Amino acid sequence: MPEAARRLADLAQQALGSPLPVRLRAWDGSEYGPPGTPVLVLRRRRALRRLLWQPGELGLARAWVAGDLDVDGDLYEALRLLAGHLWERGGQRRRTGRLAALRDPALRAVGRELLKLTPPWLPPAPPPEEARTGGGARHSLRRDKRAISHHYDVGNAFYERVLGPSMVYSCAYWESPEGTLEDAQEAKLDLVCRKLALAPGQRLLDVGCGWGSMVLHAARTYGVRAVGITLSEEQAAYARKRVADAGLADRVEIRVQDYREIADGPFDAISSIGMAEHVGSARYAEYAADLFALLRPGGRLLNHQIARRPLQDETAYEVDEFIGRYVFPDGELAPVGRTVAQLEEAGFEVRDVEALREHYALTLRSWVANLERHWAEAVRLTSPGRARVWRLYMAACALSFEANRIGVNQVLAVRTPDSGESGLPLRTRDWRG
Amino acid sequence: MPEAARRLADLAQQALGSPLPVRLRAWDGSEYGPPGTPVLVLRRRRALRRLLWQPGELGLARAWVAGDLDVDGDLYEALRLLAGHLWERGGQRRRTGRLAALRDPALRAVGRELLKLTPPWLPPAPPPEEARTGGGARHSLRRDKRAISHHYDVGNAFYERVLGPSMVYSCAYWESPEGTLEDAQEAKLDLVCRKLALAPGQRLLDVGCGWGSMVLHAARTYGVRAVGITLSEEQAAYARKRVADAGLADRVEIRVQDYREIADGPFDAISSIGMAEHVGSARYAEYAADLFALLRPGGRLLNHQIARRPLQDETAYEVDEFIGRYVFPDGELAPVGRTVAQLEEAGFEVRDVEALREHYALTLRSWVANLERHWAEAVRLTSPGRARVWRLYMAACALSFEANRIGVNQVLAVRTPDSGESGLPLRTRDWRG
Repeated sequence: MPEAARRLADLAQQALGSPLPVRLRAWDGSEYGPPGTPVLVLRRRRALRRLLWQPGELGLARAWVAGDLDVDGDLYEALRLLAGHLWERGGQRRRTGRLAALRDPALRAVGRELLKLTPPWLPPAPPPEEARTGGGARHSLRRDKRAISHHYDVGNAFYERVLGPSMVYSCAYWESPEGTLEDAQEAKLDLVCRKLALAPGQRLLDVGCGWGSMVLHAARTYGVRAVGITLSEEQAAYARKRVADAGLADRVEIRVQDYREIADGPFDAISSIGMAEHVGSARYAEYAADLFALLRPGGRLLNHQIARRPLQDETAYEVDEFIGRYVFPDGELAPVGRTVAQLEEAGFEVRDVEALREHYALTLRSWVANLERHWAEAVRLTSPGRARVWRLYMAACALSFEANRIGVNQVLAVRTPDSGESGLPLRTRDWRG
Repeated sequence: MPEAARRLADLAQQALGSPLPVRLRAWDGSEYGPPGTPVLVLRRRRALRRLLWQPGELGLARAWVAGDLDVDGDLYEALRLLAGHLWERGGQRRRTGRLAALRDPALRAVGRELLKLTPPWLPPAPPPEEARTGGGARHSLRRDKRAISHHYDVGNAFYERVLGPSMVYSCAYWESPEGTLEDAQEAKLDLVCRKLALAPGQRLLDVGCGWGSMVLHAARTYGVRAVGITLSEEQAAYARKRVADAGLADRVEIRVQDYREIADGPFDAISSIGMAEHVGSARYAEYAADLFALLRPGGRLLNHQIARRPLQDETAYEVDEFIGRYVFPDGELAPVGRTVAQLEEAGFEVRDVEALREHYALTLRSWVANLERHWAEAVRLTSPGRARVWRLYMAACALSFEANRIGVNQVLAVRTPDSGESGLPLRTRDWRG
């Protein structure tokens, strides 16, 4: 009788219509497929069962979260080989749909047969894998889902391991790929301050301030009075401590507040960095109008936001089920052209758009490296399933930026007064790091 | 009996609902209105007759073209005072509609009475006005319209007087308002070349090459082989002579050709400077798709285009009747957000948007100054009516840019290959002049 890996490969080929581009290792230890490629490990028969129950990306994702599905070797390479096809423009639905072929009774029969014939699972994996196998039982689907869907309550200590000392959870601004994440994050914060032309005594509002890095840099380096708002109590407490430690409590205020509840405008400048992705198209016009109303005439907004490519068939667009379900439940991306149009319709004059796509890929690869370096700690601070999800989503996003499937843009918009005087310099060279 | 000026002012106040912000001088020599303001001169009764026939901007425009309506004093100040209200966002229709009050029978009666009561015209105006009065009779509305509607057949000699030696008919890139037009135009051409990362041996296509300044600069300074296309035989002949005189005939080709007829792609880079305004929304998607198809993978497009503000009520938007009728019959402006979206939908990755609004105001004021300096020559080379139209449209456009009613943007878009490698530098400081 052929081993499980060989039969799994046959099953995958029948379902997907082409041979798997990576090697397979099944729960009985058998291997099959092209040598020298990363190995896709089905550590438990349950991985196949999940796929038969729920053909498509979500079945794969749940198997990954539970630790039943794994990769030995280069995770980026495995993702590129397995998912590369999914990333052709407009192709998500068609390709994702292929796994749905496992709904075919004949294929399901093959799958069920396969589950009967083989022992239940592989021996425990070597460190640092034990954290994952240990996590299998304690993480039911419901429990994983419920826990992981709260992106920003993962814990400050976990984010310290991933983001490093700069504690900035958005795209950095790299001088070169050889630079350090800390230098690149400081360069990004300073780039935003220069585009906003911050000056001593001005009032800055940072919408979605995270752990306070932006308001701290602006107050320390540009002498502004800053208000940072977040919806995360954990972030606010952390940011307040950093502000106090920096002796800036008199000039920097951190609030747990929704931007729609701000009553103490106007501000000279607003930064919104990595926050607008959570707004969604239904509320984006309101978001733009609210920020416009919070600025004095002549005030500036720097909107730093992830964008997706437009698609010929908008209905064909799907946020990755995995990321939508496990990472950013409310995330919604729009093409940058729509963002520019909606800011203009709110009354802003859009003066400058800078694409930073490659910068986000470098940033995400740094975060993945940090997470892998502190893997055991990260697992202890959160959970094996959550750590596995963060590693996968950050690696997948790095590839998405590199493949131009998504991008990220800094849009500088001005509440230009009726006089038409934008207050901007004729040349913008001083904005460039 | 009160003089004509006083009665005209009363009529205007009844029609517009508020007193004229400028002084009036009527055909009988009488004056009325706030002292120290520019003087709006109704040189002939015909000016009023045109307004009664055709209330609204077009009646004013035709009176101006014929020389029956004039301004003594600062033309910019007169336009700002008279038209400033028209430029509130979304306000065009309402305000323009006010002049239509002259359709009111009672007001028309007042106007007709006024025409009967006073002598026909003012004595000839002092130089350089004589060119205008002399032009009155020879320029019927039909003849003016037919002649003036052909924007680019005005004659190279005329444009030499207006544009100066650089012969670039688009927004320059100013280091400071005190700089020279020639320096600013060279800086603009070089900025475009740097954004396109032109290198020796590459092929550049300049769509709408005008008198060849862009292809000449790119070939001379960056060593590219360039193709410039225009639909104007006059421009092509002029550009070919410049190319020959520069000894670049082996590397620069000028064609009278439509971009939809280009068969010798792909190109490494495409510049489209001040051309897309003529494309129109109906054909813009085709324009973007055609330029995309003309680029090699990794090739770049620099699209330099005038934009209008979006309006709450798009139906309320009117291109100035004057400019639409007399200057750019086919001109059509779109908000920059729509331009970015349409380039993305064609497959481009939009990497950089730079607003140059204030630069175009400085450029237009330089052109107006050139025209006024060479007024008699310009009139001789074209016609009094045409020279008057060019002076008015360029001054009005300068004010429109200053008032943020319109803008102009350089959009850098890349035909990014499937690998996702854009070929752009991490930082764009070297693009900034």
